[in-house]
Amino acid sequence: MTYKELVENIKQKQSFLCVGLDSDIEKIPNHLKTFDDPVFEFNKQIIDNTAKYTVAYKPNLAFYESTGISGLISLDKTVKYLKTNYPDIFIIADAKRGDIGNTSKMYAKAFFENQDFDSVTVAPYMGEDSVTPFLSYENKWVILLALTSNQGSFDFQFIEDKTDRRLFETVLEKSAKWGTKENMMYVVGATKAEMLTDIRKIIPEHFLLVPGVGAQGGSLEEVAKYGMNKDCGLLVNSSRGIIFADNTENFAKIAGEKAKELQEQMENLLKA
Amino acid sequence: MTYKELVENIKQKQSFLCVGLDSDIEKIPNHLKTFDDPVFEFNKQIIDNTAKYTVAYKPNLAFYESTGISGLISLDKTVKYLKTNYPDIFIIADAKRGDIGNTSKMYAKAFFENQDFDSVTVAPYMGEDSVTPFLSYENKWVILLALTSNQGSFDFQFIEDKTDRRLFETVLEKSAKWGTKENMMYVVGATKAEMLTDIRKIIPEHFLLVPGVGAQGGSLEEVAKYGMNKDCGLLVNSSRGIIFADNTENFAKIAGEKAKELQEQMENLLKA
Repeated sequence: MTYKELVENIKQKQSFLCVGLDSDIEKIPNHLKTFDDPVFEFNKQIIDNTAKYTVAYKPNLAFYESTGISGLISLDKTVKYLKTNYPDIFIIADAKRGDIGNTSKMYAKAFFENQDFDSVTVAPYMGEDSVTPFLSYENKWVILLALTSNQGSFDFQFIEDKTDRRLFETVLEKSAKWGTKENMMYVVGATKAEMLTDIRKIIPEHFLLVPGVGAQGGSLEEVAKYGMNKDCGLLVNSSRGIIFADNTENFAKIAGEKAKELQEQMENLLKA
Repeated sequence: MTYKELVENIKQKQSFLCVGLDSDIEKIPNHLKTFDDPVFEFNKQIIDNTAKYTVAYKPNLAFYESTGISGLISLDKTVKYLKTNYPDIFIIADAKRGDIGNTSKMYAKAFFENQDFDSVTVAPYMGEDSVTPFLSYENKWVILLALTSNQGSFDFQFIEDKTDRRLFETVLEKSAKWGTKENMMYVVGATKAEMLTDIRKIIPEHFLLVPGVGAQGGSLEEVAKYGMNKDCGLLVNSSRGIIFADNTENFAKIAGEKAKELQEQMENLLKA
């Protein structure tokens, strides 16, 4: 997907919502467990009920890998289902990969050739040659970890160098030269919304993928206030707050309502 | 596998060799392509010919994921083959994972429950709660990236903080408190062997997984000189230099010879 198409979808749907498909088999409603592929059935119903309010889906690979081959088949089917039925939706492989060049190239092949994801999240620790192999695919994106939403983000990401630059700022500065706003985004946790002002000074134009709204405590208003740019420039993710809002036979309808609530808040923020 | 068992295996085999199973389907010998599962057949023959000289195998997940479900089936079979036929060999999932706590827990489940790896490589950027879920399994190990062998390692890993401490040193210092030498190792690239003196000051007792000998240019002698401790404390990986040394019908025999050469050099270094 191109930058222009993504911006267009956000305008049309008046939404910058990304739904996280962290479809833990232990947490999906019991009545789905009689299906041949309960996780795919869960995803399909979640998608059908939330797609109207959503510009992106983000399956986190860990939840699929945790059950082995069967989980990966569910993931494959989910990506194909999205591409067939909702071709204008941006799909993120939340995989946090990154390895030496020759190996990152293989991961890029996995997500962009073998599967048809639009983007993959990548960890920055190994530097430029671990990231650039993902950037050689047209209309595919790297979403690089900058400032994450978890407690552990304070261990290394805030370390200051001799010029008072924090590690996440150096990551933004250096990596912004590896790609463009048309093929790179950054992960910035909503739990650190006050940091968005500093971040926007370094990368005013890039899209940010913002997890941590909802279950992790981040505020949508603050994210929009400090992070939004003229093209919106945000994809805000909610996972558990939507997909596990209910675990009865109504789960998908309730998920749709939760997504709609967020979309309406987003519409107001886009208009403001 | 316990620390004690690993040290015992090194003594018995007089080897600290790890063979990297980066089994790229594009590079395996042509005559294997008639097999139902060429990658598994390749791994099986490599293993049967190198196991005598080897204390660890390290499949890099990227090479298996690049071909999708079929690649992951080959990987599954490889791990089972090792566990059944060579139960005293240490198996490393070179996966470079790491995510927020609740998600890292799912990756731990993938590698330690769904599959039976002894260890998994983890990226440190997201900090403590991204690493500790892997440490809650008895006799399973985290191998944390500290100083990698690639060019990109210079982008962030050498950044100095205000007390002259480089990022990789802070990673070592902090993370050493999260586990013990009995459940944590570190990745230190052989291309940076001169750094091993500094690294051993911080973590004198932990095992180091050292990639980059061979194709990437690192020297085994230097790694041993600066990195070895009283229990050896090293697993030195070679991938392409062994598994792709030959691509005729003799590939496995030649791989065995290359592994034997390295084992003999290691035996001399262990005796010195």
